[in-house]
Amino acid sequence: MGEFRLVELLARIAEEGQGKQSAHRQRLVIGIGDDAAAWRSDALITLATVDCLVQDVHFTLDMTTWNELGWKALAISLSDIAAMGGVPQYVIVSLGLPGDTEADDVADLYRGIIKLGNRFGVVIIGGNVSDATIAFISTTVLGSATGQDNILTRSAARAGDRIAVTGNLGAAAAGMKMLKQKMPLGPEDSASLRQAFLRPCPRIAEGQFLAEQGVNAAIDISDGLIADLSHLCRASRAGARIDIDRIPIHPAAKNGFGDRSLEMALSGGEDYELLFTASTGVIDRVKTRASFPVTVIGEVVADKTGMVTLVDREGRPYKPAGTGWQHFAMGS
Amino acid sequence: MGEFRLVELLARIAEEGQGKQSAHRQRLVIGIGDDAAAWRSDALITLATVDCLVQDVHFTLDMTTWNELGWKALAISLSDIAAMGGVPQYVIVSLGLPGDTEADDVADLYRGIIKLGNRFGVVIIGGNVSDATIAFISTTVLGSATGQDNILTRSAARAGDRIAVTGNLGAAAAGMKMLKQKMPLGPEDSASLRQAFLRPCPRIAEGQFLAEQGVNAAIDISDGLIADLSHLCRASRAGARIDIDRIPIHPAAKNGFGDRSLEMALSGGEDYELLFTASTGVIDRVKTRASFPVTVIGEVVADKTGMVTLVDREGRPYKPAGTGWQHFAMGS
Repeated sequence: MGEFRLVELLARIAEEGQGKQSAHRQRLVIGIGDDAAAWRSDALITLATVDCLVQDVHFTLDMTTWNELGWKALAISLSDIAAMGGVPQYVIVSLGLPGDTEADDVADLYRGIIKLGNRFGVVIIGGNVSDATIAFISTTVLGSATGQDNILTRSAARAGDRIAVTGNLGAAAAGMKMLKQKMPLGPEDSASLRQAFLRPCPRIAEGQFLAEQGVNAAIDISDGLIADLSHLCRASRAGARIDIDRIPIHPAAKNGFGDRSLEMALSGGEDYELLFTASTGVIDRVKTRASFPVTVIGEVVADKTGMVTLVDREGRPYKPAGTGWQHFAMGS
Repeated sequence: MGEFRLVELLARIAEEGQGKQSAHRQRLVIGIGDDAAAWRSDALITLATVDCLVQDVHFTLDMTTWNELGWKALAISLSDIAAMGGVPQYVIVSLGLPGDTEADDVADLYRGIIKLGNRFGVVIIGGNVSDATIAFISTTVLGSATGQDNILTRSAARAGDRIAVTGNLGAAAAGMKMLKQKMPLGPEDSASLRQAFLRPCPRIAEGQFLAEQGVNAAIDISDGLIADLSHLCRASRAGARIDIDRIPIHPAAKNGFGDRSLEMALSGGEDYELLFTASTGVIDRVKTRASFPVTVIGEVVADKTGMVTLVDREGRPYKPAGTGWQHFAMGS
């Protein structure tokens, strides 16, 4: 199947699979199939982000279906919009595909993108397909924010802020390990870990809620709690202290991996939960009003810019063991 | 050099290399370094497009410098904005890089992007760097148009329209062949063909001018004159007849390749000139007012949707010889 026919097939799948009611779709003037997409702008602030999944680096085709791959490729970019507190609107997909890729598989990849996109009214507006010796999927997502003051940034953390996270951590890394080593876990834990790793759910509503409640600083957890907290601290020229006994480790990760689940939560990455900081007052309000789990795990400190210090509940320094700590070193 | 340090290096190069005076830059609220870029929207219509260059498919590192590669990666996406008659504003870069890539080379790639971007005030607002076994560069460009009626589309060609092109054709394909076969051409032709292949200049001002003058249908020549005309015809549900004796073949291609330059102009691709159609009246006005070369090469016909017919100056059917005609077959 030639490139042009493939693009037409993908355009048809997108056309049929995406709800016509989406406000973003109604503002589209030109969708897939012209030199560029065009839409009537409605945003005060436009947001844009790109992320990429590369075969044999971020995924292997024996561990993921094409549908899951499409879902995840969109999820990782939507998660960046979530971390800004924004509303995702459009996605542009740049695919690299080996010559022997089946058209059915690419169609399934697109269906995975559409499946997640439909949850948030996100519309595929264009893309590109290139020959390549390995598969890659680069997703650029465009979104909006209502104003400059309603954006969550990495640089807005202040000494004295509490540090909090949405949801639970460690499940994605646990899911990857389980799949890689073909570990026979119980059916519920197994399903839950697979889902966490292959179909992460970007915290779009949560990000918008945090921005509305007065939170200013956030990042999504893609590289790992410590690495991403370190990014946030560097951008804010501050440090952080985390109480490891307060970290909300995902129950299925704990069930499957016991004590090793702490390291998965600290540095496994790919959980796509939101990590944010705010004053005690704002955090208390968020905790009271939020319809999703929020856990305070530490605080922003004035010294040691970019450094993340780990302590246990008695305040004793915690020394992480094992591997997987390259993020820690890089960020510090 | 780790990914984070590399991203910081690239952010610094972009910060230093890009003019602070750009109106697009002044509207930026968040640039490189946060989860997403953010800017104050000013457009009535927003345009977006993505294109990708893949190692050993679209380029080889023995034929191009990293700087040229960066230039071209941006040029091919800018050309899509040109083909809409739009104003390019921002670019987001998704890179795949083998682990042994030198930081200096990536910096040079970015300098190539910036060099071309600065010509049009286009600002790099974000990106992503992934490990990969091959290098790839995916560029998403965002732009604006003043209104829905000022967009050049592929679907607006009408039977009876004249078909015209900007500039000359065939130089990019000639340049590729010259470099591949290390052909010893004269210094002027050689420089001109290398430039055409490795540093194409997107026809931004030309596209805007055409839209202002009442042209409605356009596409940029990336796949080749026949292939791209076929795309335009399919989108417009029309056919096309081209007089091969009127095709403006690039003089350096003619000098270097003689009669073979016609096929390069017809199906070589990558010239990034604009192919457009309009009524005779509009075309005459364009030809009178344009400060760039415009050549009428044929007309849009009502029958044979998507088909491109070639004739010589006596109206006899022209049968292309040789290879390189897969585009023709695909588009028909």
